[in-house]
Amino acid sequence: MNFADRLLDAIESKGSPAVVGLDPRYENLPAALRRASPGDREAAAAALSEFSRRVVDVVAPLVPCVKINLAFYEAFGWQGYRAFEETAAHARERGLIVIADAKRGDIGPTAEAYAQSVFGVAQADAVTLSPYLGADSLSPFFSWLPKGRGCFLLVKTSNPGGKDLQDQAMPTGAVYDAVARLVTAWGEPHIGARGWSSVGAVVGATYPEQAAALREAMPKTPFLLPGYGAQGGKAESLRRAFGARGEGAIVNSSRGIIFAHAEPAYATDCGEERWEEAVRKATVAMREDLARVLPDATWAAPGR
Amino acid sequence: MNFADRLLDAIESKGSPAVVGLDPRYENLPAALRRASPGDREAAAAALSEFSRRVVDVVAPLVPCVKINLAFYEAFGWQGYRAFEETAAHARERGLIVIADAKRGDIGPTAEAYAQSVFGVAQADAVTLSPYLGADSLSPFFSWLPKGRGCFLLVKTSNPGGKDLQDQAMPTGAVYDAVARLVTAWGEPHIGARGWSSVGAVVGATYPEQAAALREAMPKTPFLLPGYGAQGGKAESLRRAFGARGEGAIVNSSRGIIFAHAEPAYATDCGEERWEEAVRKATVAMREDLARVLPDATWAAPGR
Repeated sequence: MNFADRLLDAIESKGSPAVVGLDPRYENLPAALRRASPGDREAAAAALSEFSRRVVDVVAPLVPCVKINLAFYEAFGWQGYRAFEETAAHARERGLIVIADAKRGDIGPTAEAYAQSVFGVAQADAVTLSPYLGADSLSPFFSWLPKGRGCFLLVKTSNPGGKDLQDQAMPTGAVYDAVARLVTAWGEPHIGARGWSSVGAVVGATYPEQAAALREAMPKTPFLLPGYGAQGGKAESLRRAFGARGEGAIVNSSRGIIFAHAEPAYATDCGEERWEEAVRKATVAMREDLARVLPDATWAAPGR
Repeated sequence: MNFADRLLDAIESKGSPAVVGLDPRYENLPAALRRASPGDREAAAAALSEFSRRVVDVVAPLVPCVKINLAFYEAFGWQGYRAFEETAAHARERGLIVIADAKRGDIGPTAEAYAQSVFGVAQADAVTLSPYLGADSLSPFFSWLPKGRGCFLLVKTSNPGGKDLQDQAMPTGAVYDAVARLVTAWGEPHIGARGWSSVGAVVGATYPEQAAALREAMPKTPFLLPGYGAQGGKAESLRRAFGARGEGAIVNSSRGIIFAHAEPAYATDCGEERWEEAVRKATVAMREDLARVLPDATWAAPGR
């Protein structure tokens, strides 16, 4: 089954396009989990694994996907990498679609090895990729698409530096518009039964006008919208990144959910010792926030 | 000491700007090392580690740097990632400058974790990075430059798909020219005693005209030139990517050296059972090839 079809089904079955981003920066973990002495990579990685597993257990009934950011695991070397694999396996067991947020991008033979790493070993359902090296850097990943896997290619990122190269002017639009055209063309052969491609795009939720224009330019490309929450993206501003029936996009929140216990909105009710309850409340609040601005979405239908 | 200064010293001390790329695709290892049954990640990763260690031992007296391609290690999950760390540690012990070929690129807080991973944990001397996410995605890596570390940013890559985005026309040159201007500006604050920046550029050896033009546009930026050998780059075509005195660039060869035992030029004299001798011969041949086309280079001075 095509990844885009699987994704749409999962969004409807969970009743939300919310994605929980696992960016477990060690220093931000609840104190009870930060037992490792500095430099004890084994213990720190075990804490990352436990924290991630418990987040997954809380959010599994509430969201269709988790996005696992490899960097925060690799920061603890191979022990951290093992924690990433454990997290991916646990999320898969809990029925979640796993997006490996790896942003890899290298020439063909190397890309083949990275594809084996994220799809073959970690068994992620989808991966984020950089488009800078072009078609032959992506085809080893695309060769996994017939097995139900998906890709999200960086088009317009949510960070301030996203403008440095991506916003520079070209004869027809900005650099990111040129990338959008490439991603659309690359995705064309991978459109599923429900009309969406398994080659998606990362489009920062922090730039609503650009996201709306990209939605029109890429009508069959699923968007992964980072930047909601901690990075300042508001639900209202996301509306136009979705298709007419509220489909074709997923919205990621990382720190705002996994570290909700440190947010003013939750810190009083559920402080550090009840951090899982804060995660649950923040996930529910995000679901409600998205349903509020997309009342006509198929996944938000009344009676659901 | 500034990374660029360290790099120049190492090139002169070894008498060559040749870099050996560790891209140990498991299927290409000498048969005696491929003892693992398919799927036995532990054994396969141990073979990668042993192979890498033995390559390092052969080339350490002959080259200033090794470039370790993380993908071929990550293809075996955390066990492979551990083999990458072991390889980096061994190369460092042998006095080699270690370039982690990771091509990472993500927003600030994530980039901080990746920088910790390659510089803090694996203790690489330099890392390859994607420029697509702009300044704030790079500054966490740049904050390690005062500690003698370096970066090589993708400008113009050696693969066919490099043209898809990088060669598209902008008002002033191609996309890669715009990236070259950004990289030059980002590198300006990091110029060392010998006039070169610790922010380098990856420039494909397969496009000699473009490499020559980039050399003029980026007079203080060290180039990492991949594509020599297996990818078809010839020594002659590299000459103009160097500065006037043969400085400012390093040339990488991966498969052509580490799997030289499978090349027609070496297979007869040293087949699979003498693969280390093939690695040595191929490295010596590359040194001679580069010295031949750059006879006036400071590192190639007669009497050296």
